[in-house]
Amino acid sequence: MTDDTAPARTVLIDCDPGHDDAIALLLAQGNPLIDLVAVSTVAGNQTLAKVTRNAQAIAAAGGFSHVPIAQGASRGLITEPFVAEEIHGETGLDGPQLPSAQAELDPRHGVNLIIDTVMSRPARTVTLVATGPLTNLALAVRLEPRIVERVQEVVFMGGAINGGNYTPVAEFNIAVDPEAAHVVVHENWDVTMVGLDVTHQALATPRVRTALAAVGTRPAQIVGEMLDFYGAAYTESQGFEHPPVHDPVAVALVIDPTVLTVRRAVLDVSLAEGPTRGMTVADLRSPAPEGCRTRVAVGLDADRYWELVVDALTRIGEPNQPE
Amino acid sequence: MTDDTAPARTVLIDCDPGHDDAIALLLAQGNPLIDLVAVSTVAGNQTLAKVTRNAQAIAAAGGFSHVPIAQGASRGLITEPFVAEEIHGETGLDGPQLPSAQAELDPRHGVNLIIDTVMSRPARTVTLVATGPLTNLALAVRLEPRIVERVQEVVFMGGAINGGNYTPVAEFNIAVDPEAAHVVVHENWDVTMVGLDVTHQALATPRVRTALAAVGTRPAQIVGEMLDFYGAAYTESQGFEHPPVHDPVAVALVIDPTVLTVRRAVLDVSLAEGPTRGMTVADLRSPAPEGCRTRVAVGLDADRYWELVVDALTRIGEPNQPE
Amino acid sequence: MTDDTAPARTVLIDCDPGHDDAIALLLAQGNPLIDLVAVSTVAGNQTLAKVTRNAQAIAAAGGFSHVPIAQGASRGLITEPFVAEEIHGETGLDGPQLPSAQAELDPRHGVNLIIDTVMSRPARTVTLVATGPLTNLALAVRLEPRIVERVQEVVFMGGAINGGNYTPVAEFNIAVDPEAAHVVVHENWDVTMVGLDVTHQALATPRVRTALAAVGTRPAQIVGEMLDFYGAAYTESQGFEHPPVHDPVAVALVIDPTVLTVRRAVLDVSLAEGPTRGMTVADLRSPAPEGCRTRVAVGLDADRYWELVVDALTRIGEPNQPE
Amino acid sequence: MTDDTAPARTVLIDCDPGHDDAIALLLAQGNPLIDLVAVSTVAGNQTLAKVTRNAQAIAAAGGFSHVPIAQGASRGLITEPFVAEEIHGETGLDGPQLPSAQAELDPRHGVNLIIDTVMSRPARTVTLVATGPLTNLALAVRLEPRIVERVQEVVFMGGAINGGNYTPVAEFNIAVDPEAAHVVVHENWDVTMVGLDVTHQALATPRVRTALAAVGTRPAQIVGEMLDFYGAAYTESQGFEHPPVHDPVAVALVIDPTVLTVRRAVLDVSLAEGPTRGMTVADLRSPAPEGCRTRVAVGLDADRYWELVVDALTRIGEPNQPE
Repeated sequence: MTDDTAPARTVLIDCDPGHDDAIALLLAQGNPLIDLVAVSTVAGNQTLAKVTRNAQAIAAAGGFSHVPIAQGASRGLITEPFVAEEIHGETGLDGPQLPSAQAELDPRHGVNLIIDTVMSRPARTVTLVATGPLTNLALAVRLEPRIVERVQEVVFMGGAINGGNYTPVAEFNIAVDPEAAHVVVHENWDVTMVGLDVTHQALATPRVRTALAAVGTRPAQIVGEMLDFYGAAYTESQGFEHPPVHDPVAVALVIDPTVLTVRRAVLDVSLAEGPTRGMTVADLRSPAPEGCRTRVAVGLDADRYWELVVDALTRIGEPNQPE
Repeated sequence: MTDDTAPARTVLIDCDPGHDDAIALLLAQGNPLIDLVAVSTVAGNQTLAKVTRNAQAIAAAGGFSHVPIAQGASRGLITEPFVAEEIHGETGLDGPQLPSAQAELDPRHGVNLIIDTVMSRPARTVTLVATGPLTNLALAVRLEPRIVERVQEVVFMGGAINGGNYTPVAEFNIAVDPEAAHVVVHENWDVTMVGLDVTHQALATPRVRTALAAVGTRPAQIVGEMLDFYGAAYTESQGFEHPPVHDPVAVALVIDPTVLTVRRAVLDVSLAEGPTRGMTVADLRSPAPEGCRTRVAVGLDADRYWELVVDALTRIGEPNQPE
Repeated sequence: MTDDTAPARTVLIDCDPGHDDAIALLLAQGNPLIDLVAVSTVAGNQTLAKVTRNAQAIAAAGGFSHVPIAQGASRGLITEPFVAEEIHGETGLDGPQLPSAQAELDPRHGVNLIIDTVMSRPARTVTLVATGPLTNLALAVRLEPRIVERVQEVVFMGGAINGGNYTPVAEFNIAVDPEAAHVVVHENWDVTMVGLDVTHQALATPRVRTALAAVGTRPAQIVGEMLDFYGAAYTESQGFEHPPVHDPVAVALVIDPTVLTVRRAVLDVSLAEGPTRGMTVADLRSPAPEGCRTRVAVGLDADRYWELVVDALTRIGEPNQPE
Repeated sequence: MTDDTAPARTVLIDCDPGHDDAIALLLAQGNPLIDLVAVSTVAGNQTLAKVTRNAQAIAAAGGFSHVPIAQGASRGLITEPFVAEEIHGETGLDGPQLPSAQAELDPRHGVNLIIDTVMSRPARTVTLVATGPLTNLALAVRLEPRIVERVQEVVFMGGAINGGNYTPVAEFNIAVDPEAAHVVVHENWDVTMVGLDVTHQALATPRVRTALAAVGTRPAQIVGEMLDFYGAAYTESQGFEHPPVHDPVAVALVIDPTVLTVRRAVLDVSLAEGPTRGMTVADLRSPAPEGCRTRVAVGLDADRYWELVVDALTRIGEPNQPE
């Protein structure tokens, strides 16, 4: 279902695993159209140490321990640290039994890994996919502004056109570091926001769960166990019947642009204290002005999305062992 | 189609006519379930002098010149004055030839008319319907706090749960006086927000226009002529194929609660400088807390809405004279 | 010491007595250059009911019960109510035994008393002196904008160029209603801010206290008893050795402009949530632009100030009775 | 006049030369109580390229080209770039003829130079002196949080308790990157703010100019020529009779704590849009709470300050050549 002969896109994933980040990593690793070359971590769903350990565990489970993983920022630029324990549990990835790390961390700071990855490769060949707070990307831009013209594009899961989860109008990834998001959306590069508007349609329904269960690999089994915990947490804390699996949607867009309907729109982030802090503001009232380089996702082909996830899980990891 | 035997509700309309305000007034006057007892005006769609003259003209056209009309606030509390000339034209009610005023203005200030109307009638019998900026209501509350427990309820057209018109996220009535809206939604009375979420579904489609044309009264003809101008202005300035007729929706809710689906929700207004100033923030993530007295409209029965408008126009005014 | 033959200036005092407000009223009543024509009250130092009762008691003590006193706003426009009980005590005027009111309250709202006083007298003859939060003045301006060009000038005690008391940078009167202050300083009338910069020099030192004790009238005795309580409260809560007597400084400026050094300067009020909310911002970096109508007090002649206070107390009230 | 036998303190200077930054560097280099081990640059008084070139030129003139100089951030975190050309001229250091750089730039980013300098030396031995916007320090803290407990202290020239220069209440260094300043003052390290309150007393009066002229070294001559330009610019743009020489005051505090009177006080930075953005807020109303680690300078011994500057210039550089 994926054209294996097309050239793969070089991707760095900046993440805070987190259940959906973990699935995003597995999707990137399993899909032949993506060449996952680096992973940086950032505090968000859990503390930096925990999300980094989780990234290493998922790399072991997904067979990409050769990909450098570097630890990034331990908190946002201004906002006091906060983690999403009620969704992701004490470890940040509660649920499955995860393997131990099979490789050392990259000794560089995550921000430097981002900079080196972008600057050491040909111009406009590296895509940055961010599935956590945008702290690392913001720091990278301010430390090495040349990455802005050198990346191919930036895709982030975060924000929303309408409605939030952390506050009535702000999504978690943006709310825990609004200033970083402000930096990212105001730089002169191609940025696509994959927000709650579409990820709240990326639901792990029973049909999806059945398809995942049928894959039969150990990574697929891990994903199933993660969704057991994550789904229950989402039901408990936010009243969702089936959990939205946010982060892989950003990866899916890189694999197949038809997964999402996107609109070009001026994008801003509310920084002021008060009820809208951390809210993303997209202007959809009229066509975007000439030269606008920010886009927002407005529609999801959920079937195609889950096809991609299932397909990727089919391609990685050992067949599941009978317990 | 309306139960003429039910007791009529006592209503004061605070407005800035404006085409849709004018229709709101006619709906209130024409529907037997509403006893329109007073009208106050506020700068908004046009300057105070113009919207006041328009209110008088509509009273003459609609046969309610006996209802006291008083001039209220000429600008918002903090925000610099701004009028919506691109939508409502130079007069604030461009389009039809309107009759002259048939009565003097009430000598009181609009704010005092609101206070007197509420305080002179039995407790919990007066409903305030606001279809412009909320300046007058805010001033009335601060001048005479006892009105808060004495009104039956407040219904205002303004704001939005998702998306704006004046800015990407702020609706005009709230954006031109956010502090006033903040006062109104934070007082301890029953407040219902009828925002763009529903009024953008209240479209004067060709089918609606045909039904209005068939009424055959002079007020209906005036409404038709108003919609000619207003519809063209909306198409020109905001790209709407058919114009949304916002303000009468707030009146319709008082007539027939089934016209709208409403949800109880904590409501706030963003006052900070920046991209969200003047935005209403409704928390729809979970059920409203005990004691929450603010509601937001989330759905419209457009057919029922237009039935009410057409019905009201049938009941008032002289049959249209052949020209 | 005051030229009794000069024409007296017509003054309305808007206040929240409060010890220093009370002295401001007595100064205005006792000085022949001021014709105190009206008093409006506003919640601030204590609740509206208490400060109004205090104004009536001071009128009785000072012999101006014939002057209309009207009750104004019971809270600020946006900020939640707060009273300064730690400075002014439970009654708002703890300390002396005060007489009962000798006259009924004016039936009008304080805001309407302000409007009527200004509009019923010749243009540019009424000076508004505000010694509490600026809520009433702001409401008056928004209800009757014509007062702006009709008053002679506005003098308010509040704000500061440098440093605050309610917060590190905000003074109490402004901090409890920043939006009202914003309205007042941005209208096109002559406004003078008498802030902490000068009133923190208006200290009731032992020398001052001795001079007051020597006056020998009942009002002077009351002032002495007020300063006993107020001075102790200031020492306790703010560490002042001698209490600053803020509000009469604004009145003194009307009596004798040489009491204060004032500079013309653009003036603003910070409304944003955060550490500067309620701060006044005066631009003293360079000469004020052409047409600037706001002034700030930068220096006080404390000796002259206390001379005026003592002199006024000499002129009013019965000689003190031996107890 | 300086105790040459006391152990020198290890200092890194983060700066944006800029005339007063240049003098700060020369003071640090010339005074035996400071061991200047590294210099990082930041955009501020001029663009990053210009201030970096200026730092190299001053190093050549002052005989410290062996000290690593690394280029840091080219703009603030959020605020759009702005340079102080009206004060520092087109080059950022207009006035004297400056020597060429005598050494290559350190290849590291300025932020990494800060991190490496702190982390490679014994704990609590490195003092960071910042005389420009605090962007580099903020980035360093967020990249390597361990520097916070590892530095000896942070001293920055910037901000003010009362009054600003860039805006009525904000000082330039803070105003061009308020978020960075917010980071720096809220970390758990010892921070001292040397603001306009004291640096506006550090005036290069004729007496000071005469003393500098008498030194007779080439660096002293350069300082004299810088002050010719800088003094004229300050007179022209801000109306100062004699220019305030801000930045060396921060260095002087490290040399000799008696140069300044400092008070411990809670310190904050206003980030909100509006008239106070970029203002520092120090709470001087009462003693600082237990554990408060921020201090603000409230008094300057100007004579001692200029003695230190003159003394340092005496110690460095070749005797001035007759032209």
